[in-house]
Amino acid sequence: MKHDRYALPIDSFADRPTPFYYYDLQLLHDTLCAVKEAMPANGHMHYALKANSNPRVLQMISSSGLGADCVSGGEISTAIANGFAPASIAYSGVGKTNREIALALRVGIGCFNIESIEELYIMSEIAVQMNKIAPIALRINPDIDAHTHHFITTGLSENKFGIDMRMLDQALDTASVLPGLKLKGLHFHIGSQITITEPFALLCERIAGIVDKCEEKGISIEHINVGGGLGIDYDDPVTHPIPDFKAYFDCFSRGLSRFSDKALHFELGRAIAGQCGSLISRVIYVKKGTSKQFLIIDAGMNDLIRPALYGAHHHIENLTSFAPKEVYDVVGPICETSDTFAEDYSLPSSRRGDLIAIRSAGAYGESMSSTYNIRKLISTYSY
Amino acid sequence: MKHDRYALPIDSFADRPTPFYYYDLQLLHDTLCAVKEAMPANGHMHYALKANSNPRVLQMISSSGLGADCVSGGEISTAIANGFAPASIAYSGVGKTNREIALALRVGIGCFNIESIEELYIMSEIAVQMNKIAPIALRINPDIDAHTHHFITTGLSENKFGIDMRMLDQALDTASVLPGLKLKGLHFHIGSQITITEPFALLCERIAGIVDKCEEKGISIEHINVGGGLGIDYDDPVTHPIPDFKAYFDCFSRGLSRFSDKALHFELGRAIAGQCGSLISRVIYVKKGTSKQFLIIDAGMNDLIRPALYGAHHHIENLTSFAPKEVYDVVGPICETSDTFAEDYSLPSSRRGDLIAIRSAGAYGESMSSTYNIRKLISTYSY
Repeated sequence: MKHDRYALPIDSFADRPTPFYYYDLQLLHDTLCAVKEAMPANGHMHYALKANSNPRVLQMISSSGLGADCVSGGEISTAIANGFAPASIAYSGVGKTNREIALALRVGIGCFNIESIEELYIMSEIAVQMNKIAPIALRINPDIDAHTHHFITTGLSENKFGIDMRMLDQALDTASVLPGLKLKGLHFHIGSQITITEPFALLCERIAGIVDKCEEKGISIEHINVGGGLGIDYDDPVTHPIPDFKAYFDCFSRGLSRFSDKALHFELGRAIAGQCGSLISRVIYVKKGTSKQFLIIDAGMNDLIRPALYGAHHHIENLTSFAPKEVYDVVGPICETSDTFAEDYSLPSSRRGDLIAIRSAGAYGESMSSTYNIRKLISTYSY
Repeated sequence: MKHDRYALPIDSFADRPTPFYYYDLQLLHDTLCAVKEAMPANGHMHYALKANSNPRVLQMISSSGLGADCVSGGEISTAIANGFAPASIAYSGVGKTNREIALALRVGIGCFNIESIEELYIMSEIAVQMNKIAPIALRINPDIDAHTHHFITTGLSENKFGIDMRMLDQALDTASVLPGLKLKGLHFHIGSQITITEPFALLCERIAGIVDKCEEKGISIEHINVGGGLGIDYDDPVTHPIPDFKAYFDCFSRGLSRFSDKALHFELGRAIAGQCGSLISRVIYVKKGTSKQFLIIDAGMNDLIRPALYGAHHHIENLTSFAPKEVYDVVGPICETSDTFAEDYSLPSSRRGDLIAIRSAGAYGESMSSTYNIRKLISTYSY
């Protein structure tokens, strides 16, 4: 099925200097509606700002009533400036500084997701100093391999994230004893860009065991935060512009049905903002080599680093050519071989000046951009 | 040999907010002296701005009399603003835009390094329109594997860079025929972080053949640009703060001795700016897991992306502990597993608040930094 509703507004791109990120606000709106429609009654969604913190994008998300998942003081300030209620903010991250913790306590965020026993002590110390109670959840590492790229698998044993399952007792005891802390929840996150439900089903089994263990110890928790991880269709974003939120939520509702009295927190970023963004660029040169030809475009790895950093593949379109297809390497202008968006990629025969869209670039695109090679920070266009 | 001359000024770090890049201007100065002392009489050095374009660093380099190797209009403007004479600037890059070419012609740069036959046509067209003569060199791809990381090997056949050797005749003919162009040189670049001389010696053989071929065609060139590529000692920067420029230059003087009437251009970036920079950070948490312990520091992959992007290793020091060594994973606060500076790394037993130096971070550190996770762009301190 082709979604004409989300066709790229090519005419409005014509006179615009490239490269830029285009955000389809209609698609973002429809995605948010799909989230809210599918979410269970006890569900709360915290949008993960790290995926995309463009103000227009954030304002639409906060207006829709979602909370925010932040990983720095900068993200907390940005979330609040763009309409998120402080109480709707959860703050994750392995390296919260004193200054960031104090900021979060001052504005009154909803929950700190605690990544280590060491952090519990610091959190307690600062909260007591400020005469505050820090609402916390313990991030537990459930040892589940989400079968995604090893760089973005965060749920396996002994990486920097979370508290090892074998240290759970110690963490619960410490959280109970230290002053200035109020244990409200448990937090999990097993990885990113997961497009099958099996890892989530397995996560539910682990979570159930851990919640039972807490209750055996007489510790009652108010919410279970299952993290994010739902993937998007990078191969065919035109056919699948909106992820299957229902299957995702149903998996947790089913797997955690015994705990329907508790709030269920979710932290999606990519699944919400990924498909609404496209990186729009122009062909500067069509370079013919002896065995390959290159589309050299004016967007580079400084604008979208996912292909260079993760070996990520994005669907690419030539918006202005309808000629028979040829095979190209699509590359940027940066002086690095890794500045390559696609190798041996079929596109309509392309010419200098053609408009190129790199799709599914709404997540981890603009937010990771830089000025490497002293290029201007990439601009954006939302419609 | 320990170089006390380049000891880190730890006392001056104590009250400074971390993380920041520290640049040792004495070491940069001594490195520049070493370059000038070792460079052959017909040599001209163009410093590659992409490695580091910090103003203090650039001003010291331009003051020392070096030229600049730029890869964007932004780099050209920055070079000129920091004291480089326009005529000393060479402009490389596969994706020069019309606007950038016009800027470079307007300010009167010394040479355009042309990466494709398609670029020759555009260059000619713009030069004619502006009533200018564009001084050019042809970047020839000499098909030499420099045995470095595949991401930064740029001299192999059929990547986006340079003109394939098999298209050399066509390129020379086109450059001779098109108006507005003045062919002044040949340009080569075989890769980065090369610490053996064999690839350079092989390059000289290839260059000699190509220059002979040009002269057979009646084309006389004024300069040979052999590119950059000289590596630095990432493992032991304290013992080897200054690369062996003499061995590097001697290799070219020897290999190209037949062409001593021509100017010899070099484009070093990392070898000049790499060792003078250190990323200074503080330990936020010492996190003990069950089988590993983590030093969570306040610098992240947004500040120094080389480990995440290239799997690069940097020498790491704890500046404030002299306790017996322990083994740590040194990680940043960013919510990505790839935000890891070292795994199973021996450091003196470390505590929260300790100062950590990540050495050899003067090249491709600050210049590739970003605000990912809405962190502040990293600050710098030069002394």
